[in-house]
Amino acid sequence: MSGLADALVPAEASVAEIATALGGEVLGDPALRLERIASLQSADAHSISFLAHNKFLPQLQASAAGCVILRPEHRDLAAARLAAILTPDPYLFYARLTQWWVQRQRAQQAPGVHPSAHIGQGVHLHPSARVGAFAVIDDGARIGAGVVVGPHCVVGPHAVLGEHTRLAARVSFGEHCRMGARGVIHSGAVIGADGFGFAPQAGTWTRIEQLGAVRLGDDVDIGANTCVDRGALDDTVLEDGVKLDNLIQIAHNVHIGEHTAMAGCVGVAGSARIGKHCTFGGAAMILGHLEIGDHVHISAASVVMSSITKPGQYSGVFPIDDNGAWEKNAATLRHLHTLRARLRALEKKFAS
Amino acid sequence: MSGLADALVPAEASVAEIATALGGEVLGDPALRLERIASLQSADAHSISFLAHNKFLPQLQASAAGCVILRPEHRDLAAARLAAILTPDPYLFYARLTQWWVQRQRAQQAPGVHPSAHIGQGVHLHPSARVGAFAVIDDGARIGAGVVVGPHCVVGPHAVLGEHTRLAARVSFGEHCRMGARGVIHSGAVIGADGFGFAPQAGTWTRIEQLGAVRLGDDVDIGANTCVDRGALDDTVLEDGVKLDNLIQIAHNVHIGEHTAMAGCVGVAGSARIGKHCTFGGAAMILGHLEIGDHVHISAASVVMSSITKPGQYSGVFPIDDNGAWEKNAATLRHLHTLRARLRALEKKFAS
Amino acid sequence: MSGLADALVPAEASVAEIATALGGEVLGDPALRLERIASLQSADAHSISFLAHNKFLPQLQASAAGCVILRPEHRDLAAARLAAILTPDPYLFYARLTQWWVQRQRAQQAPGVHPSAHIGQGVHLHPSARVGAFAVIDDGARIGAGVVVGPHCVVGPHAVLGEHTRLAARVSFGEHCRMGARGVIHSGAVIGADGFGFAPQAGTWTRIEQLGAVRLGDDVDIGANTCVDRGALDDTVLEDGVKLDNLIQIAHNVHIGEHTAMAGCVGVAGSARIGKHCTFGGAAMILGHLEIGDHVHISAASVVMSSITKPGQYSGVFPIDDNGAWEKNAATLRHLHTLRARLRALEKKFAS
Repeated sequence: MSGLADALVPAEASVAEIATALGGEVLGDPALRLERIASLQSADAHSISFLAHNKFLPQLQASAAGCVILRPEHRDLAAARLAAILTPDPYLFYARLTQWWVQRQRAQQAPGVHPSAHIGQGVHLHPSARVGAFAVIDDGARIGAGVVVGPHCVVGPHAVLGEHTRLAARVSFGEHCRMGARGVIHSGAVIGADGFGFAPQAGTWTRIEQLGAVRLGDDVDIGANTCVDRGALDDTVLEDGVKLDNLIQIAHNVHIGEHTAMAGCVGVAGSARIGKHCTFGGAAMILGHLEIGDHVHISAASVVMSSITKPGQYSGVFPIDDNGAWEKNAATLRHLHTLRARLRALEKKFAS
Repeated sequence: MSGLADALVPAEASVAEIATALGGEVLGDPALRLERIASLQSADAHSISFLAHNKFLPQLQASAAGCVILRPEHRDLAAARLAAILTPDPYLFYARLTQWWVQRQRAQQAPGVHPSAHIGQGVHLHPSARVGAFAVIDDGARIGAGVVVGPHCVVGPHAVLGEHTRLAARVSFGEHCRMGARGVIHSGAVIGADGFGFAPQAGTWTRIEQLGAVRLGDDVDIGANTCVDRGALDDTVLEDGVKLDNLIQIAHNVHIGEHTAMAGCVGVAGSARIGKHCTFGGAAMILGHLEIGDHVHISAASVVMSSITKPGQYSGVFPIDDNGAWEKNAATLRHLHTLRARLRALEKKFAS
Repeated sequence: MSGLADALVPAEASVAEIATALGGEVLGDPALRLERIASLQSADAHSISFLAHNKFLPQLQASAAGCVILRPEHRDLAAARLAAILTPDPYLFYARLTQWWVQRQRAQQAPGVHPSAHIGQGVHLHPSARVGAFAVIDDGARIGAGVVVGPHCVVGPHAVLGEHTRLAARVSFGEHCRMGARGVIHSGAVIGADGFGFAPQAGTWTRIEQLGAVRLGDDVDIGANTCVDRGALDDTVLEDGVKLDNLIQIAHNVHIGEHTAMAGCVGVAGSARIGKHCTFGGAAMILGHLEIGDHVHISAASVVMSSITKPGQYSGVFPIDDNGAWEKNAATLRHLHTLRARLRALEKKFAS
């Protein structure tokens, strides 16, 4: 058995097999063997590629891809290929194809627990689960069907991993934390570290032990080295379908609504409540104890300092410039309110 | 023995036991059994909660909490509860209560070294310490009384962990680094990675090996996935009572004074010297080789580009706005210094 | 054998030995024994220090350093020391000295595989390599001559580590990822986690499995807890000599040119293409799908929102101020474009 739980092995499939599994109308040779999924630029005759937008039509023309996934309106472009698959949303088809492709590879890996893993007392471990080398599954944890726990993961006492979740190598999943079905947590992520809570006492800080947990819904993905802290008393909650990229900080008692996605390096301070179907660009920062409604989109590197209830796109970034120009503008910015006063004085003087 | 060093088990206590341990005046039934500490909103008859500020009085009124921690001035509100504890600072009492609560649970765990752990040569390991599964304690390290080293921690050669410190799972604590008493380091933190130092050489970078260490005082807490780099030649130093949240970067040769606290995602560049009793909001950034005095408070997401010696609150964040308004303002900002020149010209023209 | 792969042991060397190894002209006593490399401030008679810039001349005068590395023009300053080494670039000499010093210490450590490590099937492991406690080297990986894999590292299936690379403790190096010679990866870094890719589908996100890998050139250094994601289909690439500090996020399909260096907390979004010999200050953010040319320098905490092709220094940071002044300026900033309109109106009114 492999130490690393998610080893991929080479695979191949025919156009017909793909269409049988995922749908779509096949044009050309259904028996064409495909050895890999590739971008238009790097594809060869044994690759399947896709046309996500019309702006990539020149790349398609230059591509050596044997098979391409196209919208029905591009039916005529199929003739230049050995094969093509027509489907209304090629990008979505490509996404599903990658899942199917990887699943076929992983299916070849047997379930079981690596002999070096440490399994505590009273652990409920489904026989179809796989546990990697040196993993620790602590007392009373529950590991569902088809779960993969990578090598060097530490799953705390009484934690729950829902069916078909996958933890990559070196994940910390803390005591009493729970996760629904089908999610993925990437390497180095820490679910359930203590929230940052201290009571001030005569100039020093008295630690507040964090007694809540973390609750992740179904289909939640967590990026590498991302942290989701346990709640102070109640739980920190990420609802179904939330997607977090790498190096994100989610503080204690945050609540994130369904299908909200955050790019890398985002930070969310304690007790912020974020709606459904929101998106956050990289390094956006959300201050604590505020509320963000559904369908709010925050641009990269923007700082949310008060609640936002109205759907829409919000931004706040100092525009980058060559250093000399920036210095002049930044220096002037420090006097902006006096500039406004001077302008008002002039206006008043010449009001007529 | 449990693989995860810090497993919590259910606990309960009477009101009288709590007051005996932590002080306060008991009103109502001292024999009331409390099963958990809870927020006002989620408390039930077997919960103890607290009133941190008067603004939460409506939540208190709606709460089902059996016992509440109150200030003496709220003595009359106790009658609505099965029990109450009066104390001058309920929030601080709550903090101490969480510590006492958790300590009672942890006290049930026996000391000892997990059989899978690797203990090097010449290690001084106090018999009351606990070492988790697969932990590595390297040659010559010194582990004090009551220390907990979580599973998968790597404690480098000649490192020193002071008494009653606790390392959660998967902490790197580097060679020759030292830590005082009672601190906590959370999962994934890296203490003592090499500082980022290179000498330029004809367009390439020559690595400077980092020969200093990291020195943490007493009562220092370090968040999940936070990094504190070792010094180039001298040590990086965090004095007593410093509190760091998650995903913070402390570069080589930084010095942080007593009881300074930093929220998540803060970055401090090399050789910055930061005073005592400072606070840094999330994602604040401090450039290198500058000095910040005592009692300086930096707002979230603000960038400190030069030394600050005067106590006070400092901020610097571009205000977020709907995207359209932001675009117009940001575009204008790039011409701010010419706007000022034009205003000055007008003023000159009409000076009288 | 030590569990921690990179334990340092005390070393000492004479001035003559150093000059023989690294060049330079020796003045004073070539037999002087040096026990450590030190900063001018903390040096003693058995220390070797260096004068990096003339601005440190006062520190040199106050220093107790037995031996100092100086430029030839400072030959007269050598008389005040027991010994000195003259060389055109003392800072570079110091960098090379640290490498030589550490190399001598490491040379005392024997190669070999810690008995607790897990080595998969078909692994090519050079006999001069060292593998630490609980490390996992998965099936088909190739580990070159002189490589050091720290304790608790996870090297994925078919990964390649070039000769004399060094992985500190707890590094994830993913399946099929490759690394050239002589690089270092620090603790907690994650090379080859999945890129953040999802296809939208009726308000939910469909995961796109990431099928590319990560390719690191020679002499690439990666900081603690930094993440470099694998490409979606093609590889994420860091060319020779790239240096990344801690807690950096490199998204999928990014390409970074030779000898570019990034300070801590930088984020680079997907498919950005960055040139050679660039530098990025801490917490700089680079948005996706844009291009940055060679010799571009981005200041700390600045956000690159569109391509930059012209070499130079670029900045974009809201200047920090005391909180009251900031609030007034930030509030005015939200009306900046109306201020401009009002100024224009005044100018028009009095145009003559």
